[in-house]
Amino acid sequence: MRLHDNIAHQRDLEATLQAVLVLLSRQEVVSGLVEREAGPRRDLVQNLLQRQHSAELQRTLHRLHPADIAFVLENIPPDKRQMLWALLSDPERGTILLELADAVRENLIGSMSGKDILNLASHLDSSQIAELMPKLPEDLALDVLGALDRNKQSKVQSALSFPRGSVGALMEFNMVTVREDMSVDDVLNYLRKYEMLPATLDRVFVIDQGGILHGVLLMRDVIRSQPATAIRDLMDAEAVAFRTDDSAREAASAFERYDLLSAPVVNLHNQLVGVINIDRIMDFKDEVAQKDMLNQVGLREDEDLFAPVWNSARDRWIWLGLNLTTAFLASRVVALFEGSIAQVVTLAALMPIVASIGGNTGNQTVALMIRGIALRQITRQNFKRFVAKEMGIGLINGAVWGCVMAVVVFFIYFEGSLSMVMMLSMLASLFTAAMMGAFIPAALHLLGRDPVLGSSVLLTAVTDSLGFFIFLGTATLILF
Amino acid sequence: MRLHDNIAHQRDLEATLQAVLVLLSRQEVVSGLVEREAGPRRDLVQNLLQRQHSAELQRTLHRLHPADIAFVLENIPPDKRQMLWALLSDPERGTILLELADAVRENLIGSMSGKDILNLASHLDSSQIAELMPKLPEDLALDVLGALDRNKQSKVQSALSFPRGSVGALMEFNMVTVREDMSVDDVLNYLRKYEMLPATLDRVFVIDQGGILHGVLLMRDVIRSQPATAIRDLMDAEAVAFRTDDSAREAASAFERYDLLSAPVVNLHNQLVGVINIDRIMDFKDEVAQKDMLNQVGLREDEDLFAPVWNSARDRWIWLGLNLTTAFLASRVVALFEGSIAQVVTLAALMPIVASIGGNTGNQTVALMIRGIALRQITRQNFKRFVAKEMGIGLINGAVWGCVMAVVVFFIYFEGSLSMVMMLSMLASLFTAAMMGAFIPAALHLLGRDPVLGSSVLLTAVTDSLGFFIFLGTATLILF
Repeated sequence: MRLHDNIAHQRDLEATLQAVLVLLSRQEVVSGLVEREAGPRRDLVQNLLQRQHSAELQRTLHRLHPADIAFVLENIPPDKRQMLWALLSDPERGTILLELADAVRENLIGSMSGKDILNLASHLDSSQIAELMPKLPEDLALDVLGALDRNKQSKVQSALSFPRGSVGALMEFNMVTVREDMSVDDVLNYLRKYEMLPATLDRVFVIDQGGILHGVLLMRDVIRSQPATAIRDLMDAEAVAFRTDDSAREAASAFERYDLLSAPVVNLHNQLVGVINIDRIMDFKDEVAQKDMLNQVGLREDEDLFAPVWNSARDRWIWLGLNLTTAFLASRVVALFEGSIAQVVTLAALMPIVASIGGNTGNQTVALMIRGIALRQITRQNFKRFVAKEMGIGLINGAVWGCVMAVVVFFIYFEGSLSMVMMLSMLASLFTAAMMGAFIPAALHLLGRDPVLGSSVLLTAVTDSLGFFIFLGTATLILF
Repeated sequence: MRLHDNIAHQRDLEATLQAVLVLLSRQEVVSGLVEREAGPRRDLVQNLLQRQHSAELQRTLHRLHPADIAFVLENIPPDKRQMLWALLSDPERGTILLELADAVRENLIGSMSGKDILNLASHLDSSQIAELMPKLPEDLALDVLGALDRNKQSKVQSALSFPRGSVGALMEFNMVTVREDMSVDDVLNYLRKYEMLPATLDRVFVIDQGGILHGVLLMRDVIRSQPATAIRDLMDAEAVAFRTDDSAREAASAFERYDLLSAPVVNLHNQLVGVINIDRIMDFKDEVAQKDMLNQVGLREDEDLFAPVWNSARDRWIWLGLNLTTAFLASRVVALFEGSIAQVVTLAALMPIVASIGGNTGNQTVALMIRGIALRQITRQNFKRFVAKEMGIGLINGAVWGCVMAVVVFFIYFEGSLSMVMMLSMLASLFTAAMMGAFIPAALHLLGRDPVLGSSVLLTAVTDSLGFFIFLGTATLILF
C-alpha cells in the first residue's frame, strides 16, 4: 500500500521533482553531445541515449498520480516543462491539464497544435471536456466540440448550457441505468457486459422506457439478494433527486443534511440526465468560500489576477465609494468637536485608539454570531443571553484595558483628567461595540441577508463614528 | 422519487412543522378533555383518542429524514418538544440526537433517564457513540461505555483516544474486509452472508491473517470479473492509505488532490483499523473554516457561546493587548504632528479618512493574494507582475478618488491647499497600501505561516500608522 504520510508525502513530491530535473538535464547534455557529432553516427547515438533517458523518465512519471505530475510541471522552468510535456501520452495529458494551475495550463495549451489538443480531448469524458472548454481559445473549443460524436457533443453542450451555480453545471454523466422490470440476475449480467463501468459503483439508477427516473438501487442490495428478486421491490423510490436548475448551494446543504454521496439529476420531465457527486459538491463549496472571502472586501468573484489595470481599478469603485462615505461620516463626527481638539490637541492623537479597539471587539462578537447562526447554536430563545454575555465581556475588558490605557496615558501626558477620559470612553466604546456586534448580524439574518457579507463593513462604519463620538464627547464633558 | 426542489423543500419542512404542531395541540386538547373525565371511562377515552393521534403523528414522522425531525424538534417550544420526543423510538432517537443543535440536544439529554440513554446508545454504531460521548455528562458517558460489548468498547475508546485534527479521530469502523487468497466467487458468497453490509459498498479492503492491509478491491472489478479470478490479481495495491496519526488537514487536501471518496486507515504496524470517508472530511473542512474565521479575529476555536463571562473576557486579552499596542503606535505617529494639528485643527477630522481607505484597499489586495496562493495562481515568476498591477490600481484609484475627496473638502473648507493635501495623501496611501497588501501575505507564506490568519491584522496596523504619517506629513510640508 502507498502510505500517505503527511511529511513523507511532501518530501516524496520534492524528491520526485528533483529526480525529474536531474533526468531532464541529463537528456539536455545528451542532446548537446549529439549536436556536435555528425552523419549516421549522430543519429545512432542520439537514438540510443535519448531513448534510454526518456524511458527512465517515463517510468518515473508513470508511477505518479496526474495531480502529482501537475505539481512537477508547475514547479519546473518553462523549457524543461516543454520537454516533459512532450514525453506524456495523450490520455495522460488530458487528465493532467485539468489538474494544472491556470497560468501553466494556458502556457501549455498555447504551445500545442490544434491537432494535439483534439487528440488529447478524445481521451476525456463529456464532463471533463465541458470543464476544459472554457479554458480553450474560442476557435479551438469549437473544433474540439465538432470532433466529438453526437452523443458526447450533446452532453457537453447541455453541461455548458447550465448557469454557474446550478446543479446542471456540476453534474456528470458517467452513471449506470437499469430498468425496473429487471431481476437481480439481469442487473448483474448487464453490468458484467457494461463497457465503461464507473470506478465508484455503489449504486445504479432505475429508469423506465421513457427515461423517467423511478428509483435508486444500491449495489449492496443487489449483492445480498436472491437472483430472482425484482428490482422494483429492491430499489429506493424515495431517494433524494435534484433538478438541473436547482441551486448548487441548496444541493450542497442537502448533501450535508442527508449525508449523500451522490444523487440523480432529472430534467423538467423527470427524465434522468446526470448524476451529481460529492467531490463536485466539495469543489463547489471551496469555490463559494473563496468567493465569499473576495466579496467580503468588495471584490467580484471572477476578479482576474492579471486583467488590465484600468478594468480592475474600476471594478473596485463601488466599494471604495462606500468606504469613503462611511469614513467621511466618521470624519464629520470628529469635525463636531474641532473646538475641543483646538484646545487640547492631544485628543487628536488618542482618538484613533478608542475607535480601533471598538472595531476589534465588535468584530469578535460578529464572528461568534455568524458561527452561532450557521451552526444553529443561537436561537430566538437564547439570543438575549448571548447579547448579555457579550456586553458583560465588553464591560470587563473595557474596565481592565481602560485602566491599562489610563496608566499609559498618565505616564505620557501627566494629566489625570485625560486618563479619566481614556478609561471611561474605552469602557463605553467596548460595551456599545459588543452590542452592535450582536445586533448587526442578527438584523441582517432576520432580513434574510447573509450576515457573512455585510456585517463587518457595517460594524466598522458604526464603531468608527461611535468611537470618535464617545471619546471626544467624554473629553468635552470632562475637560471643559 | 422525492425531488429536492430548492424552494419546495424549504416549504415542505415548514409545512411539516405546522402539521406536527397541529397534531401536537390536538393531542393536548384530548389530554385536557380526558383530565376532566374520571374513572374507567377516562382511561378508555384517553386510550382511544391518544392512540389515534399518536399514530397519525408517528406516521408523519416516519416519512421524515432524521435531519428533518431534528429541524422540527429545534423549532417547537420545549413542552411540545418533550411530547414529540416521547413518540420516537430508541433507534430513531439515537440518529436524531447526533443531528440536533447543541442547545436542544443538551435539553433533551437532560430530560432523559440514564436507562433511556443506554437504550438509545445500544442502537448506535461505534463511531456514532464516539461522537455522542463528549456531549454526555461524564458519569453517564462512563455508563454508556460500560454497557457496550468488548469489541464496540475498544473501538469507541480508540476513536476517543486520537487527538482532534488527526485522521484517527475522523475514521469510522463500518467497513468490509476480505483476504487476498479469496477468489471473486468467495468474496461474493462472503458478502451475501455478511450481516451489516454498509450502504455504500463501492470497495472492500484486502487484509492478511495478521490484519495487515494489502490493497483495496473495487466492487466494480468484482462484478465484472470471472468467478475464479484471484483477489490478489484484482486488488489495487497502490491505493492511498492514511495512518491514524496523519493530520486531518493533510488528509483533506489529499482527498481533494486525488479525488478520493474513502481511504483505509492503518496503525503503526500497517494493520487496518478503520476507514476515512469523504463526508467526514467535508464536515472537518467546515469545522476548519469556522475555526479560521474565529482565529482571524483572535478568538479560540472552542470559544463556548455561553461560557462564564469572566473566562471569555480573559480569553480575548492577548488579541486586545496586541490591537491596543498597534493602535497606540499609530497614535504616537499622530502625536508627532501635534504642532501641525494645533495650527490647523481640521487635519484631525480628515486624517481618519486616509487611514481607513488605505486599510480597505490593502485588504482587497490581501484577499486576492490569499486566493492566488491557495489556487496556485500566483507563483514566484508572476508575483512581480501581480504587485505591479495592484500598485497600478492603487495609483489610478488614488488619483480618481483623491480628486473626488479634494473637491468635497474644498466645498467644506474652501481651502485649495487642504484639497491638495487630501489628493496627494490619498494617492500615496492607496499606492503603499496596495504594495503592503501584496508583500505581507507573501512574506507570511514564505515564512511558512498561514497568510489567512495574520495578514489582515498586520496590514491594518501598518496602513493605520502609514495613513496618518502620509496625511499629516504631506500637510506639514504643504501647509506650513
